[in-house]
Amino acid sequence: MSKKVAVLLAKGFEEAEAIMTIDVLRRLDIHVTTLACQDMLELTSYHNIRMFADVLLERSMDEIFDAVVIPGGPEGTVNLAANPLVVEFIRRHDAAGKWICPICSAAARVLGGNNLLNGRRYTCSGDLHQDVKDGIYVDEKIVEDGNLLSGKGLGVAFDFAFHLGWKLTGDASNVDFQVDHISYDYWRTKA
Amino acid sequence: MSKKVAVLLAKGFEEAEAIMTIDVLRRLDIHVTTLACQDMLELTSYHNIRMFADVLLERSMDEIFDAVVIPGGPEGTVNLAANPLVVEFIRRHDAAGKWICPICSAAARVLGGNNLLNGRRYTCSGDLHQDVKDGIYVDEKIVEDGNLLSGKGLGVAFDFAFHLGWKLTGDASNVDFQVDHISYDYWRTKA
Repeated sequence: MSKKVAVLLAKGFEEAEAIMTIDVLRRLDIHVTTLACQDMLELTSYHNIRMFADVLLERSMDEIFDAVVIPGGPEGTVNLAANPLVVEFIRRHDAAGKWICPICSAAARVLGGNNLLNGRRYTCSGDLHQDVKDGIYVDEKIVEDGNLLSGKGLGVAFDFAFHLGWKLTGDASNVDFQVDHISYDYWRTKA
Repeated sequence: MSKKVAVLLAKGFEEAEAIMTIDVLRRLDIHVTTLACQDMLELTSYHNIRMFADVLLERSMDEIFDAVVIPGGPEGTVNLAANPLVVEFIRRHDAAGKWICPICSAAARVLGGNNLLNGRRYTCSGDLHQDVKDGIYVDEKIVEDGNLLSGKGLGVAFDFAFHLGWKLTGDASNVDFQVDHISYDYWRTKA
C-alpha cells in the first residue's frame, strides 16, 4: 500500500522546500496531503505565492501518516511552533514512531521550541540551533536519528525528499531512477 | 532599478521548476510576475497543487520584462505551446533581446514547436530534442546562447535560477551569498 505523508503548512511557509518535497514524493507514488495549520485552506507562502492546501489540520487530527514533513520559512515556522494542534499532531506521530521530518528552521523552531527533539541529533539552518536546549545539533545536510530526519535548508531539499522517499518505500533503484530522470546529479542512495 | 521577470504558467506546469526559480529570483531582489496563460488566475500544477498567478497573460501583452521564464511539465508545455498569445509574447521579448529561459520540456515543446529556437544551442529534458528541427541540442545542465538560457530539468532548477539571477543583476558576490545561505553546495558563478 502506498505510504502517506502529511506536509504541515502555515502562512509564510518556505514554498520551494514544501513544493520540492511534495513533487519528489509524488513522483515516487507516495500519497502526500498538505495540511493547512490555520482556519482556511488558502495560504500565502514566504515569497508571496497564494496556494491551497488539501485539508485543514483540524480536520485531520485523528488521522495517522507515515511521515510528517515540516517546511521552513521564517514566519512559517513561528506560526507552526505557536499552534497547539501542530504540537499535538507531531507529538502523536512521534510517539507512534512515524517519521518526523523538519527542514531549515523547522527543527529548531517547531521541534526545539516545543521540547520535541528529545536529545536526538538534528540539523537546521543558520544559528538557530544556539537557542535550542534539548537536541544535539550536527552541521550536516541531512541528519537521521531514529525516526527524526532533518534537512539543513532549501539547497538540500531534493536530498531531503529523496532520502525520505527512499526510507518510506525501501526502493533504492526507483529513487535512483527518479533522481536521474530529473537530472539531479548529486544524490545517490547509500544502498 | 530592479530587474523584471515574467514566469509563464499554464495548467500542468512543473510546480517545483517554477517555484524554485521564483524563490531564488525573489531572494535576489528581482521583481517576478507570474502570468496565467489561460482565462483565470487559479492554476493546477503537474502534481495537483492549486495556486494563483499574479496576472493574466492577456492583460500583460504590452508589458516588457527583462526575462521570460518558461517552466516545464508534460501538460504545461503542451498548453503553452498551443497558445498564440504565449508565442507572440515570447517572440516579442526575443526580438527585443530579452532573456528567453526555458527549462525541462519547454525548449523543445514551446520554442522548438513554434520555430523560436532559430538555430541556437539549447538543452532540454529526455528525448524531446529528437523532434526539434531548428536548434542545436546540447546535453548540458545549463546552456547559454545569446539571450537564450535553457536548463535541462527539475534537478538543475537552482543552477538555472542562480545563473539567470547572476546574468540579470551582474552581482556574483550576492548570488554566491544566497547560494551559500540556502546551503546549496553545487553551483558557483564562474566570475
